[in-house]
Amino acid sequence: MKSKGTRGERELFHRFWDTKLWAALRTAGSGSTPLPAPDLLVSNSKRCLAIECKVFKNSIKYLYPEEIAQLNEFAEKFGAEPWIAIKFDYAGWSFLKPQDLIITKKGYYSISKELSSKKGIKFEQLIQ
Amino acid sequence: MKSKGTRGERELFHRFWDTKLWAALRTAGSGSTPLPAPDLLVSNSKRCLAIECKVFKNSIKYLYPEEIAQLNEFAEKFGAEPWIAIKFDYAGWSFLKPQDLIITKKGYYSISKELSSKKGIKFEQLIQ
Repeated sequence: MKSKGTRGERELFHRFWDTKLWAALRTAGSGSTPLPAPDLLVSNSKRCLAIECKVFKNSIKYLYPEEIAQLNEFAEKFGAEPWIAIKFDYAGWSFLKPQDLIITKKGYYSISKELSSKKGIKFEQLIQ
Repeated sequence: MKSKGTRGERELFHRFWDTKLWAALRTAGSGSTPLPAPDLLVSNSKRCLAIECKVFKNSIKYLYPEEIAQLNEFAEKFGAEPWIAIKFDYAGWSFLKPQDLIITKKGYYSISKELSSKKGIKFEQLIQ
């Protein structure tokens, strides 16, 4: 069985294709190479988005600072907008910019359900 | 052992990163999904290239028309330039545009060593 993260990634991948206006790619070896690589890269030929996908069971999650640094690094070099796609159980996807995440005292990034509903935007808004 | 095609793809992937100016992505499930997906997608934030990689043992090779159609379809939707990267044994990479390929009577695209050296450009020219 595929992990929750992979299933989430595939779900979003198809969601972009289903719009008929966006093309999407899933990255090979994302997370297993030292080179930065987002989970998804999508474009409608005007905007290009580099997306890290996160599916959470709990209402708060911590991300390593390296993960966000790599997303930003890749996006800058590629010429894409960096986004974090978040799905909590029993809730739809929401999309956050890296600068919307909260940095904890120990230097991790935290994402809570609250933050995601306060700062995040929905799929339909993202692709407008 | 990885297939020749996969090794070729990885070689090119690293070649783009090594320039320090280009970011590159390898596609997951390229060839195993009905949705179009090039082997590599690279960008220096100004130009974005969608690349199919082919490593050949023989001096002529035939490609399915669907493969080229999918490359063009993806590239158009994504806003990328479509390219075919070709490497014959004991020769370096050369890069061809889909329209440079020759269509056979049966509707396949053919790539020969001769065509590749006549019409193809080298890596250094491609990334200029």
